[in-house]
Amino acid sequence: MKARVHVMLKDGVLDPQGAAVKHALGALGFDGVDGVRQGKVIELDLADGATETQVGEMCEKLLANTVIESYEIEID
Amino acid sequence: MKARVHVMLKDGVLDPQGAAVKHALGALGFDGVDGVRQGKVIELDLADGATETQVGEMCEKLLANTVIESYEIEID
Repeated sequence: MKARVHVMLKDGVLDPQGAAVKHALGALGFDGVDGVRQGKVIELDLADGATETQVGEMCEKLLANTVIESYEIEID
Repeated sequence: MKARVHVMLKDGVLDPQGAAVKHALGALGFDGVDGVRQGKVIELDLADGATETQVGEMCEKLLANTVIESYEIEID
């Protein structure tokens, strides 16, 4: 079973990586970029029988810092 | 317009971040994690009229190192 977790900084939390990418895109001549947020994606290859609940626990305990980050789980 | 870009290390490229996450999950008692790959996700807020081709150019020029990374574009 495959699971994909997206971890993004919550709205309102300063995202210096995203700001740097936005600046660099502007410097390269890409206009019309109004905002950039950068996060992490973690692809997990899990034994059969793993549940979304377990993946949620992994996020809470390790993958995301839930004070400043939110996460989304996709199960394939 | 919103675009989301996933940048992952290509298969066969060593992923030390993913390996560290796999090890840490095991240490926390999560069994059955057979593999972990970690990548980046970049959310772009673009002016209307931007095209997937433009986002592809951004990936080629800045967002991904195409020697070792592959990218996927999702347009919302």
